[in-house]
Amino acid sequence: MPFGVLVHFVAVTVEARTAPKREAILEATIRVLRDRGLSGLKVEEVAREAEVGKGTVYLYFQDKQDLLKALVEHHTFAYYRKVEEVVSRGGPFRERLAEVLRLRVDWVEEWRGLWAAVAREAQPEDTTGWLRGMHEHYQRLLERLVQEGKARGEVRPELDTCLTAASIAALACNPQLEFPREAYLEHLLEVLLKGVAL
Amino acid sequence: MPFGVLVHFVAVTVEARTAPKREAILEATIRVLRDRGLSGLKVEEVAREAEVGKGTVYLYFQDKQDLLKALVEHHTFAYYRKVEEVVSRGGPFRERLAEVLRLRVDWVEEWRGLWAAVAREAQPEDTTGWLRGMHEHYQRLLERLVQEGKARGEVRPELDTCLTAASIAALACNPQLEFPREAYLEHLLEVLLKGVAL
Repeated sequence: MPFGVLVHFVAVTVEARTAPKREAILEATIRVLRDRGLSGLKVEEVAREAEVGKGTVYLYFQDKQDLLKALVEHHTFAYYRKVEEVVSRGGPFRERLAEVLRLRVDWVEEWRGLWAAVAREAQPEDTTGWLRGMHEHYQRLLERLVQEGKARGEVRPELDTCLTAASIAALACNPQLEFPREAYLEHLLEVLLKGVAL
Repeated sequence: MPFGVLVHFVAVTVEARTAPKREAILEATIRVLRDRGLSGLKVEEVAREAEVGKGTVYLYFQDKQDLLKALVEHHTFAYYRKVEEVVSRGGPFRERLAEVLRLRVDWVEEWRGLWAAVAREAQPEDTTGWLRGMHEHYQRLLERLVQEGKARGEVRPELDTCLTAASIAALACNPQLEFPREAYLEHLLEVLLKGVAL
């Protein structure tokens, strides 16, 4: 992760911790977004939902774009915290991988349905760099999972940790198509664990 | 693939075959796009590059949006033809899979860099359905590959063909991050063939 991005994320996290009102506004924004969709999202509505004045919203966010950008980060890091919880839980690699895949498929569905549009509307100057910075965090969590899987003797030790984490990240990222959810998750796990070759 | 979409694709293909001028305009559009980027793409420029009058462009495409939509389809199906060529080639499953992964990673990179923006600008009424319709084609090609892999005794016969194809499609779809290309491709292949578990 480039240093600037890292500093930014640390700043976001620290700020979120020390500013419960900021967090309340972001949570209210998610509720408005779910109720009315992206086109119905207005700062007035967010303020009403968060039970603060419109001016208070502008204390924390420059404009709607800034709010949307913060929202995507907020939501993405909430997802990463769930992944981190699973990774930190310990226990068999297989079980943790299954949970991570499940969280990932949920996330991709939600992202495709709503968050990609929000991210687009947020129009950060450097979209690719911004998304990459966030994704890097996920990559690090998966590297930890692979590392621990190796330490437990459950992952092939000859595989490169970084690229194995990248392959796991890649695996669950698709698809445009919908498949029966449970069967698909089981299958992803099976293919990742044992491969397809005879 | 819904029937309407299928008819549309067939129509596009037939029309492309019978309309070399249409194809020339699309190819010229790609060159203009690569030279000047999406923001510099003007119908005048396309006409000049294709050595036709501006009116001729409008004979084949209603407007710029329609041209962009056709362009994404044209480019996507050119990619599918390459995949189809690899799948139809016969020979060991492993070699064909390696080639398909390579084409996919190229495609994803190019898509992320340029084509996603073009598709967005094209603004088809039903983006999800439109993308899904195209992806369905890719899924079918992969199912054929898996099926033949099973017939050759090179793929685990107990795996569901459809979901294995979906897993292969899912695998190479990521990532925001960049890894050393050859190492990454080899690793994807290794993980897909043998899995990560000890």
